[in-house]
Amino acid sequence: MPINPVALTADLIRCPSVTPAEGGALVLLEKLLTDGGFTCTRVDRGGIANLYARWGRQGANRTFGFNGHTDVVPIGNRDDWSVDPFGAEIKDGFMYGRGATDMKSGVAAFAAAAIDFVADTPPDGAIVLAITGDEEADALDGTTALLDWMATNNEAMTVCLVGEPTCPNEMGETMKIGRRGSLTAWFTVRGEQGHSAYPHRANNPLPAMARLVDRLSSHALDQGTDHFDPSTLAVVTIDTGNPATNVIPASCNATVNVRFNDAHSSQSIIDWFADEVALIKDTFGVDTDMKVKVSGESFVTPPGALSDLVAKAVKAETGRTPELSTSGGTSDARFVKDHCPVVEFGLVGKTMHQVDERVAVDQIGQLKSIYTRILRDYFA
Amino acid sequence: MPINPVALTADLIRCPSVTPAEGGALVLLEKLLTDGGFTCTRVDRGGIANLYARWGRQGANRTFGFNGHTDVVPIGNRDDWSVDPFGAEIKDGFMYGRGATDMKSGVAAFAAAAIDFVADTPPDGAIVLAITGDEEADALDGTTALLDWMATNNEAMTVCLVGEPTCPNEMGETMKIGRRGSLTAWFTVRGEQGHSAYPHRANNPLPAMARLVDRLSSHALDQGTDHFDPSTLAVVTIDTGNPATNVIPASCNATVNVRFNDAHSSQSIIDWFADEVALIKDTFGVDTDMKVKVSGESFVTPPGALSDLVAKAVKAETGRTPELSTSGGTSDARFVKDHCPVVEFGLVGKTMHQVDERVAVDQIGQLKSIYTRILRDYFA
Repeated sequence: MPINPVALTADLIRCPSVTPAEGGALVLLEKLLTDGGFTCTRVDRGGIANLYARWGRQGANRTFGFNGHTDVVPIGNRDDWSVDPFGAEIKDGFMYGRGATDMKSGVAAFAAAAIDFVADTPPDGAIVLAITGDEEADALDGTTALLDWMATNNEAMTVCLVGEPTCPNEMGETMKIGRRGSLTAWFTVRGEQGHSAYPHRANNPLPAMARLVDRLSSHALDQGTDHFDPSTLAVVTIDTGNPATNVIPASCNATVNVRFNDAHSSQSIIDWFADEVALIKDTFGVDTDMKVKVSGESFVTPPGALSDLVAKAVKAETGRTPELSTSGGTSDARFVKDHCPVVEFGLVGKTMHQVDERVAVDQIGQLKSIYTRILRDYFA
Repeated sequence: MPINPVALTADLIRCPSVTPAEGGALVLLEKLLTDGGFTCTRVDRGGIANLYARWGRQGANRTFGFNGHTDVVPIGNRDDWSVDPFGAEIKDGFMYGRGATDMKSGVAAFAAAAIDFVADTPPDGAIVLAITGDEEADALDGTTALLDWMATNNEAMTVCLVGEPTCPNEMGETMKIGRRGSLTAWFTVRGEQGHSAYPHRANNPLPAMARLVDRLSSHALDQGTDHFDPSTLAVVTIDTGNPATNVIPASCNATVNVRFNDAHSSQSIIDWFADEVALIKDTFGVDTDMKVKVSGESFVTPPGALSDLVAKAVKAETGRTPELSTSGGTSDARFVKDHCPVVEFGLVGKTMHQVDERVAVDQIGQLKSIYTRILRDYFA
């Protein structure tokens, strides 16, 4: 009996696995995979549950890896949903629920594909599923915990496919071969407080902050590279919190978020910030504190064997040749890329993180078919 | 028996006349002035008490006017005071209390000087005291109410002296012949919200705000004029209130405060703002709302007979020739200047609006002597 990925998606949606809760999702998958002949290991760290499953020999010549997550973002306001967010209700061809597209359907599709594939045509090689419960939050103890454990235990993937939703509108139109890097910087400009009527006796941090923000936001980081759109910088907030019109404030805060391509590294961006801060100090005589959080470096798996394999399967099952994209936010592919070549392909992600998140039911089966074809072609 | 201005200051401090409360201060003065031969009229408006007192004939050839206020700012935290803020306690030569320098001592000095002067040497002319209970707040129903009532009732001053504290550190060092204008402008730049990862799909208001603030604050309004220091612009706050680093906000607010000299009017400043806002719209495609509150226009009573009269009296009583200044914040002279020539002279204002506000006791008597000499010389 082949595994029905639609029923499996519904079962997973019914597990309330809002990060960091396991919610029963990994327990369910562990049982299913064990029954399917996979060797399963729970790789829990920092209160987070993760599941590593391998079919075939450790150290096989070729190991095809799938990566995905069962945790989901919070539902927000329950009253805004037209259905039970953990009910997996089907209406008009769509299955509703938190995680319906991001990405319980993806996990269900690759688990179903892998189990049925090894049962039908046992390959000469191994298949690994690295499934985490910590992708939507800080991802400190998720895929990295799995990769750390794999390194320690001589487990490896030759290539990896991340099953995140990658298609903006139509099934099959886009796959990802890389991601931009992302960092956030918090600036605090410190001046000297005073009376608005006597600005020369104070040192107002706001003109300095305005100049800094103007310079950062009007600078073109690049014009794009071979596989990437131009890098972007977005100033997301500037705040002072001074309610008194007759007082010059002592300090001001601003936050900027940078999405950068392979023309940069987080360090080159930080160096640029430091130069700008020094210039502002020279010009205005103010000190600026800077705190930076790097969410991920940019990376790309150049078009080649792996992307061709995926694109061919997508084309065969959907009739569409997927665009090789590097757009969008971050995903756990940013960790996997240090381990092996990685690409991403999954469903239409339009409703991810929204209320009434939903997935077209027929596309779940289609995704299982694509993943099955990828495995067949890879091991052929 | 001459009136003791120190005792009168103490009596006034004991009236808790925090704006808009009358607190008994004007009632006390009305009785004293009536007893001294002044015709008194309460000119109350909008819940505010004001007192108009005239000695001598209506429509006299020469009418010398005094202007001042009996209302005071709040005491702030009572525990921060080392004395009763309404106790008028004397310690080490200083009288303590809210309003001690700003400006119950000034009112006491000119009331005492005027009453004694008309008793000793009845002048050929009139003396007017226009005393308000609404100077420290919005001043909508204070000196303007008195001036409106005067216009309606054919009352007039030929010249006017405002008794506000004008000396920064030493008695007699400074008088004011004008004031800068003051206005506050609130800007809201409206863009379009979006995701930080896709800035081209949003229209971030923050770069536009940064450019606007940078342009406004780096523009030199002027280099100063004959009687004024250069005009100043202080950006007092920039606020967005966006806590999400992955969201581009829809709007941003900034507030600027301008102190402008006689090279400008509030309208010329507002016109400049409008031009800058239009430029920002052209450059960034954002709309900017602007709200302006004008606290007062700039004005100057050019050095001449009135300033000479006051300076001569100050020099005679203190040994110091007062500097003719136009610095500082606003005062009710901004209203009086539309009625007649006006200058300001009073005590050392160092502790005004502070906890433990206090006045040197001997300077109260000195101020009465100066005001008396001014009256004598004016009517000589």
